[in-house]
Amino acid sequence: VPSLAERLAAIVGASHVLTDPALTASYDVDWTGRFRGRAAMVVRPRSTSEVAAVLGECAAASVPVVPQGGNTGLVGGSVPVGVPRAVLLSLRRLSWLDPVDHDAGQVWVGAGATIAAVAGHARAAGWDFGLDFAARDSATVGGAVATNAGGERVLRHGPARAQVLGVEAVLADGRLVARAGPRGAGGVVKESAGYDLGALLAGSEGTLAVLTAVRLRLVPALPSRVVAVVGVAGTAAAQRVLSAVRRRVEGLAAAELFHADGLALVRAHTGLPPPLGSEHPAYLLVECAGQSDPTEALADALDGVAEVGDAAVATDPPGRAALWRYREAHPEAVGALGVPVKLDVSVPPTALATAETAIRAAVLAVAPAARLIVWSHLAEANLHVNVLFAESLAEQVSDAALNAVAAHGGSISAEHGIGRAKARWLSLTRSPTEIAVMRAVKSALDPRGQLNPGALFPPED
Amino acid sequence: VPSLAERLAAIVGASHVLTDPALTASYDVDWTGRFRGRAAMVVRPRSTSEVAAVLGECAAASVPVVPQGGNTGLVGGSVPVGVPRAVLLSLRRLSWLDPVDHDAGQVWVGAGATIAAVAGHARAAGWDFGLDFAARDSATVGGAVATNAGGERVLRHGPARAQVLGVEAVLADGRLVARAGPRGAGGVVKESAGYDLGALLAGSEGTLAVLTAVRLRLVPALPSRVVAVVGVAGTAAAQRVLSAVRRRVEGLAAAELFHADGLALVRAHTGLPPPLGSEHPAYLLVECAGQSDPTEALADALDGVAEVGDAAVATDPPGRAALWRYREAHPEAVGALGVPVKLDVSVPPTALATAETAIRAAVLAVAPAARLIVWSHLAEANLHVNVLFAESLAEQVSDAALNAVAAHGGSISAEHGIGRAKARWLSLTRSPTEIAVMRAVKSALDPRGQLNPGALFPPED
Repeated sequence: VPSLAERLAAIVGASHVLTDPALTASYDVDWTGRFRGRAAMVVRPRSTSEVAAVLGECAAASVPVVPQGGNTGLVGGSVPVGVPRAVLLSLRRLSWLDPVDHDAGQVWVGAGATIAAVAGHARAAGWDFGLDFAARDSATVGGAVATNAGGERVLRHGPARAQVLGVEAVLADGRLVARAGPRGAGGVVKESAGYDLGALLAGSEGTLAVLTAVRLRLVPALPSRVVAVVGVAGTAAAQRVLSAVRRRVEGLAAAELFHADGLALVRAHTGLPPPLGSEHPAYLLVECAGQSDPTEALADALDGVAEVGDAAVATDPPGRAALWRYREAHPEAVGALGVPVKLDVSVPPTALATAETAIRAAVLAVAPAARLIVWSHLAEANLHVNVLFAESLAEQVSDAALNAVAAHGGSISAEHGIGRAKARWLSLTRSPTEIAVMRAVKSALDPRGQLNPGALFPPED
Repeated sequence: VPSLAERLAAIVGASHVLTDPALTASYDVDWTGRFRGRAAMVVRPRSTSEVAAVLGECAAASVPVVPQGGNTGLVGGSVPVGVPRAVLLSLRRLSWLDPVDHDAGQVWVGAGATIAAVAGHARAAGWDFGLDFAARDSATVGGAVATNAGGERVLRHGPARAQVLGVEAVLADGRLVARAGPRGAGGVVKESAGYDLGALLAGSEGTLAVLTAVRLRLVPALPSRVVAVVGVAGTAAAQRVLSAVRRRVEGLAAAELFHADGLALVRAHTGLPPPLGSEHPAYLLVECAGQSDPTEALADALDGVAEVGDAAVATDPPGRAALWRYREAHPEAVGALGVPVKLDVSVPPTALATAETAIRAAVLAVAPAARLIVWSHLAEANLHVNVLFAESLAEQVSDAALNAVAAHGGSISAEHGIGRAKARWLSLTRSPTEIAVMRAVKSALDPRGQLNPGALFPPED
């Protein structure tokens, strides 16, 4: 009888079944280094039908499967931590891009296509892609949809789920879930004909099915852009500026908040000059985009707001990139000091400033030597809480911070998902009945629990 | 032992359990008169907890439940056709509206609030609601979400599902599905923390749970609006005009297509003058909206398009309403001639003109005496096919039209849902595995099949 590895090699080719630890190491650990597992083998199919055949063999062998895209997640959802004998299923080779459907403003892409590849493909065709975040060159569409990833464009275009118009996926038993008819026959813009399985799979973190292809909504290319960095007195002042801009500028495309402490780290790490002539407790970066130049509308809106201390504005691509760099260099500047505990949370916008204060206090109560660097997608009140010098206290820090979030009516994950890092806290914000319904859906689609065990759901007693 | 009616009266009050046929008649039949059932009783709870208690009693009595909102559906999904002994659960009394959360741009409303009530509430608070359609004064939020309703604003704001940020719902066994913590603690703008049950329930047509409250996204109020009616040579020409406007005017808010035959009926029915100085095979109505006046941008865009034959433009509210009337009077003008077979379908935009021709031919092949009046939400290639003088051939007409739609890669329902009218054709566009997955989810949430039996799913052999 051939072994599982031999049977899988017969499907995907021997060179795409990796068992040598030297070859599998990069799949077994996440990029922060915090989550490390050990898969029995890494399997790299190149097509939907190969994925279906692989899953069928794994089901027959009763072997758990951990799907993985670009492995850029931050919650351990894509590495086989605590999953013995796992087959790690890498979807990266499913990187095909169909021609853009100009009439529908949509495109089918393979789950392994990177966010950057999709965006480049869309732009080359005169469109744009509504999803973007810093890991764009490695993160895949499949992973982004599976975690309902967000990023810097959510304010305008919504999270990953909002980009999904159709999916192809494979169930744990190898059955293909796809629309009737050939893939190319898709392309309806609007449909209300039965449950929206794409909406269900978005954010399900590989626990219900393995995404193999996604039909994505594209958005119009907006050629005129302006970026401003505005000095403000703090979070509440930044919210008032954002509110004024939002009411008066239709083209608002991004609103990011960072603070003096984070900026100091970024400047030390990058050698960048100060963004503004004076120093401020906090900095609001806004980007506006349109068919016509939104600069004047933005300047007018900022002019009328008392909270604006000082502002730098750029309209040319290098100048815009230079301003964005202050925000985007935060993760690397923090990472240069150590391995941070990274918590992605959201709160009701009304509670943002008080929740931020409470989270800081709660973390410092359990880890007095910690240092917190926080930045936010402001419009969604989505805080990225980075806790340095507390690596050995990761559980206590997470527990303190996530309880503070829940106490303010927030969510323990805004855009990274639950993964393995936060599974034990899911019940902070999802009720017992909600979790029971989620478990019932999981059992309905994956009755033997073979897909990504340990991710998303809290451990059962 | 008290009867079920007595037990339900103890929950909702005797005056809200209706058994007299004179009182239940308006609930038993849909507004087209095409679908007529007979519920054992109509029950009208006024709160989520009453809904939960009612469903618990119905489960204990093994009685099927048909949920109903404004009963404005067109596919028989909310009337107890073929459901013996049903309790018809009217959600209309759950019509509360919470104060608008200005920081989040959201509002919690009861499932029984009408679309018009929500829109009025939003506008009074300086916002707008992204969902609108002709039945706005009767249709409820719960019904709109349950059917993933669309309408005239989908082009800009997406369908009902896209407005949903959170739900409260009750399962068949009476358990409440709601976020942990008090309702007011909601209000996060973005979340990726477990399956999105709201996205699953949207479009599930009351087969999985009964929606009792929805947290809705609001959209910015756009005070400046312009409406134009443009004469064009046909569907393909209208698509080219739309494409040009879309590329050049950011504020495009609606795009509706109707034809000379429909216009003639409307004019005969209403006595309206012709919309343009000359006659055209088809008419494209576009609306643009913005913070600043979009009239010049629209005029510029139309100026450059060869397909524009003639145009009428209005910016003042009465003038805009007068132009919209040509489109919105279509249903009543058609209804005045008889009970039409109404089919709501979508096709890939690329296939719109050919699909429309094929649908017409297919219908006339089985019903040579029929008269077809078609209008469309053009951007979504969503055709409203109205077939007059074929009432006795409804099944054959539907079969012919829906097969033609499927042959062109379309969907058998764009925005009305499947209900009981189209259940037998679901497999035209949803694959056997998709339907199997949908059935598995249904069994997971409603294992005894008590919620809206006969709706959405094809009859099993």
